[in-house]
Amino acid sequence: MSKQKEKRPMTRSHTLQSHLISPSDTNHLQTIFGGTVLAYIDEAAAIAAMRHSGKIVVTASVDSVDFHSSVKSGDLVNVEAWVAATGRTSMVVYVHVSVENPATEDTKTTTTSFVTMVAIDSSGNPTEVPGVFAETDAEREIIDMALSRKSGE
Amino acid sequence: MSKQKEKRPMTRSHTLQSHLISPSDTNHLQTIFGGTVLAYIDEAAAIAAMRHSGKIVVTASVDSVDFHSSVKSGDLVNVEAWVAATGRTSMVVYVHVSVENPATEDTKTTTTSFVTMVAIDSSGNPTEVPGVFAETDAEREIIDMALSRKSGE
Amino acid sequence: MSKQKEKRPMTRSHTLQSHLISPSDTNHLQTIFGGTVLAYIDEAAAIAAMRHSGKIVVTASVDSVDFHSSVKSGDLVNVEAWVAATGRTSMVVYVHVSVENPATEDTKTTTTSFVTMVAIDSSGNPTEVPGVFAETDAEREIIDMALSRKSGE
Amino acid sequence: MSKQKEKRPMTRSHTLQSHLISPSDTNHLQTIFGGTVLAYIDEAAAIAAMRHSGKIVVTASVDSVDFHSSVKSGDLVNVEAWVAATGRTSMVVYVHVSVENPATEDTKTTTTSFVTMVAIDSSGNPTEVPGVFAETDAEREIIDMALSRKSGE
Amino acid sequence: MSKQKEKRPMTRSHTLQSHLISPSDTNHLQTIFGGTVLAYIDEAAAIAAMRHSGKIVVTASVDSVDFHSSVKSGDLVNVEAWVAATGRTSMVVYVHVSVENPATEDTKTTTTSFVTMVAIDSSGNPTEVPGVFAETDAEREIIDMALSRKSGE
Amino acid sequence: MSKQKEKRPMTRSHTLQSHLISPSDTNHLQTIFGGTVLAYIDEAAAIAAMRHSGKIVVTASVDSVDFHSSVKSGDLVNVEAWVAATGRTSMVVYVHVSVENPATEDTKTTTTSFVTMVAIDSSGNPTEVPGVFAETDAEREIIDMALSRKSGE
Ligand SMILES: CC(C)(COP(=O)(O)OP(=O)(O)OC[C@H]1O[C@@H](n2cnc3c(N)ncnc32)[C@H](O)[C@@H]1OP(=O)(O)O)[C@@H](O)C(=O)NCCC(=O)NCCS
Ligand SMILES: CC(C)(COP(=O)(O)OP(=O)(O)OC[C@H]1O[C@@H](n2cnc3c(N)ncnc32)[C@H](O)[C@@H]1OP(=O)(O)O)[C@@H](O)C(=O)NCCC(=O)NCCS
Ligand SMILES: CC(C)(COP(=O)(O)OP(=O)(O)OC[C@H]1O[C@@H](n2cnc3c(N)ncnc32)[C@H](O)[C@@H]1OP(=O)(O)O)[C@@H](O)C(=O)NCCC(=O)NCCS
Ligand SMILES: CC(C)(COP(=O)(O)OP(=O)(O)OC[C@H]1O[C@@H](n2cnc3c(N)ncnc32)[C@H](O)[C@@H]1OP(=O)(O)O)[C@@H](O)C(=O)NCCC(=O)NCCS
Repeated sequence: MSKQKEKRPMTRSHTLQSHLISPSDTNHLQTIFGGTVLAYIDEAAAIAAMRHSGKIVVTASVDSVDFHSSVKSGDLVNVEAWVAATGRTSMVVYVHVSVENPATEDTKTTTTSFVTMVAIDSSGNPTEVPGVFAETDAEREIIDMALSRKSGE
Repeated sequence: MSKQKEKRPMTRSHTLQSHLISPSDTNHLQTIFGGTVLAYIDEAAAIAAMRHSGKIVVTASVDSVDFHSSVKSGDLVNVEAWVAATGRTSMVVYVHVSVENPATEDTKTTTTSFVTMVAIDSSGNPTEVPGVFAETDAEREIIDMALSRKSGE
Repeated sequence: MSKQKEKRPMTRSHTLQSHLISPSDTNHLQTIFGGTVLAYIDEAAAIAAMRHSGKIVVTASVDSVDFHSSVKSGDLVNVEAWVAATGRTSMVVYVHVSVENPATEDTKTTTTSFVTMVAIDSSGNPTEVPGVFAETDAEREIIDMALSRKSGE
Repeated sequence: MSKQKEKRPMTRSHTLQSHLISPSDTNHLQTIFGGTVLAYIDEAAAIAAMRHSGKIVVTASVDSVDFHSSVKSGDLVNVEAWVAATGRTSMVVYVHVSVENPATEDTKTTTTSFVTMVAIDSSGNPTEVPGVFAETDAEREIIDMALSRKSGE
Repeated sequence: MSKQKEKRPMTRSHTLQSHLISPSDTNHLQTIFGGTVLAYIDEAAAIAAMRHSGKIVVTASVDSVDFHSSVKSGDLVNVEAWVAATGRTSMVVYVHVSVENPATEDTKTTTTSFVTMVAIDSSGNPTEVPGVFAETDAEREIIDMALSRKSGE
Repeated sequence: MSKQKEKRPMTRSHTLQSHLISPSDTNHLQTIFGGTVLAYIDEAAAIAAMRHSGKIVVTASVDSVDFHSSVKSGDLVNVEAWVAATGRTSMVVYVHVSVENPATEDTKTTTTSFVTMVAIDSSGNPTEVPGVFAETDAEREIIDMALSRKSGE
């Protein structure tokens, strides 16, 4: 990464989606399909990466995803995403998914994951993206998680 | 409204959804269907009202909606909602819709509207909801709009 | 509106859609989402305006919508639309929504609304539309509602 | 069929749906999927049969369907259905599908078919349906087609 | 059909899709819509015809379809398709649909049908397709059914 | 795992789905959304696990997924899944995703992954599943990959 490369604040890519789960998102036992949550994760990561880079993006990879608590019809699913690290053309997006029971205000983390998105130019080739910097401790923590993930590969 | 009735802060109902518009949400001219935006408005208002009341809600009415700027495939549509006023069983939800061009970070208001949602108990009858109070000037402004709307009817 | 402008009969734009509501259109209480009905209203209005003008159309505004009776899974929702008034490039479409219980043939009005659609040429600019005239008393009544709506604004 | 059995007019089951075809209903060549039209046919037939019988219905069979003209994004597809003949628990529904170009008002028949729907009681067993009678020549023609179809099997 | 025309083995077009039926595919009685199965049939036939011809295809006709056993939420629907006969530009595709109860491994034929697909070139005109030949007895049986269907018309 | 526990052949869980990608599955650049492929992976894994266990299943985790080649509108996506290892209540499902160009018969691996599904009884608790055994070398290779994946954690 060139030293002069433009850097953008993490807050610029911050993305939030609250989904109301209806019976049509669930199976027999009224539990949400894992695939629905995975599609939410990918969409939020794509929006965050588009906001950071101002470019069209494609999904290069999704880190492993563990579903710690189930989601039922009538629950809210909150998906939050930030660009946490960048390469030349790739962005590592941190995604946090929680389930909220609107009756009790009770909120539990469902899963977290890192998604790598690559910026694409109009001929479909990878294209450069700006760097990213944190402004708060919470953001620095996310960047640390993203870095330790990388070295752990 | 009884004086002793519990009041909850507007921030509790705050709801945000960012939608990435894909070709399948649009017509021939790649412009989004008005009905898609109306469905987003209703969903965000329902989530805000569920968060405020902790109850299941149904849509009682939607104020007039003017579409000030068009939305194209590839744009982001941000829908934000807050409960702005309450009756015995009804909640007036303010919904603000903007379109964001991720390439330019340019954001324009598409429309704003008020949606009235009614809380429903498990036998399907209207049921009481808490009151609402503002904590910031921006919130107070929304409440004022909600009140002037009522008197203007 | 120029005197020589072509006028087309209201019957030309008449549009009818009967929708069978299935569990996937409804929430926990098996009640339809307001947003689903709003999307039906917009689609019927768009078809009516396309039929009247022979042009592609976009939604400019939707008047306030009150939901007078709820719709359950297994019900039929009938949406009917007519162009009721025209400007230079805009059309005011009257939309009537009723719910029908096929077991009892019982039909109730759910809501009525006016939707303003604008005709768009191939470069996306507003383009002229023909005028409209009524041929029956029922049609004249709809035109009167459309006119009184305008003056009431 | 018992002589005293109640008979209902064909007009009672008459069902009309106008669908605006959007890019998401079509393939690469912007031509509609045959399966989309087949699903429209089944839905219109089910509504007609529910209206005639006042019962829940299931599809027992669909006669062969020939697609004579293609449908493109931006076209309107009009689906019209009537119950044309009845057995003890089954109803033969005539379905007529046409494509309408809103720019030219040009309308072409896409296909016609007969669908047999069976009325089902709450335990899922076939249950008796009323007879049907025509009131106009156009209706009598449809009944004749339904009868000649039966003898031709 | 010219004698020198290329022939491809039936196995090349063999297509299989297993669908998990969820509540959103079903009606009140938790029975699948006939239209859903018809859309599955059309999609499998289109894939088989694309695999055989290497071309884009459109649906020219669907033979009559009888639904012998119902499908409930939680069942698996297996759709299998092969090109069984060819004309100059058309392909007759045999489609077999069965329902599988994963708890009991019990499998029942729901329906079978023949779908005629026509290969289309980039200007939308019918274009030549290769012939087809069987390599196993099961395939020969399918070809025989396709031929006897033709003579029976 | 008890020694007497029933073991079922891998072939019993084998699941195949061929999807025809249409414009509505893709973004601006006509490239499929990563989330669509992730949802396919989850659905195929769920069907395989239901077939193996005869039980309802939920997704416990998805291993990391790398997208090696893009998928365009008009392509076929083939998803294949097998239960490759089992615990007391969990099943590790191997999923292989390839993209096929029907014009050239050219097929490329898009990605592979392991999904862990847990069998659930009617009160929503994890419930025992049978073991699995391979019958062919290809199956044994998949089991080896599943085992080395485990030790590598
Ligand atoms: C992602 C993709 C564009 C990379 O293309 P490529 O030819 O490998 O390009 P490069 O080698 O220049 O790599 C471009 C960047 O992607 C990164 N990348 C490539 N594969 C990756 C993977 N599996 N996981 C994470 N990052 C990856 C590279 O590290 C590189 O990052 P950098 O520029 O920050 O250093 C390409 O593999 C692709 O198109 N995949 C399909 C994407 C897609 O359509 N996903 C949706 C579902 S299929
Ligand atoms: C249709 C169905 C209810 C008939 O059940 P059945 O046990 O054969 O019942 P019966 O023999 O009493 O027949 C009931 C009626 O259906 C008619 N019928 C049965 N199969 C038929 C077919 N393939 N085509 C046309 N009519 C048929 C019978 O003629 C009889 O009509 P009648 O009462 O007017 O004389 C049963 O086959 C079924 O459930 N099929 C699946 C329906 C479904 O779920 N479709 C959606 C897609 S799978
Ligand atoms: C199918 C279609 C392309 C045929 O066009 P056409 O002008 O009749 O072309 P041709 O006369 O050259 O016929 C082409 C082939 O289609 C076959 N065909 C035409 N109509 C058919 C029908 N209803 N059923 C079966 N085959 C048919 C012809 O027999 C011929 O086959 P062959 O080349 O193997 O001998 C045309 O009718 C069409 O576009 N229909 C709509 C298809 C569509 O969009 N379906 C989706 C839902 S509407
Ligand atoms: C998966 C789930 C049922 C496990 O429940 P639990 O209380 O941890 O149950 P147990 O500790 O008895 O574990 C049951 C099995 O799941 C396995 N498991 C639990 N979490 C897992 C994970 N993240 N990844 C892989 N396997 C996991 C355990 O190892 C155990 O396997 P075994 O019986 O073969 O030894 C529970 O975490 C859950 O409901 N998650 C949400 C599932 C869901 O709804 N997914 C859809 C999207 S949210």
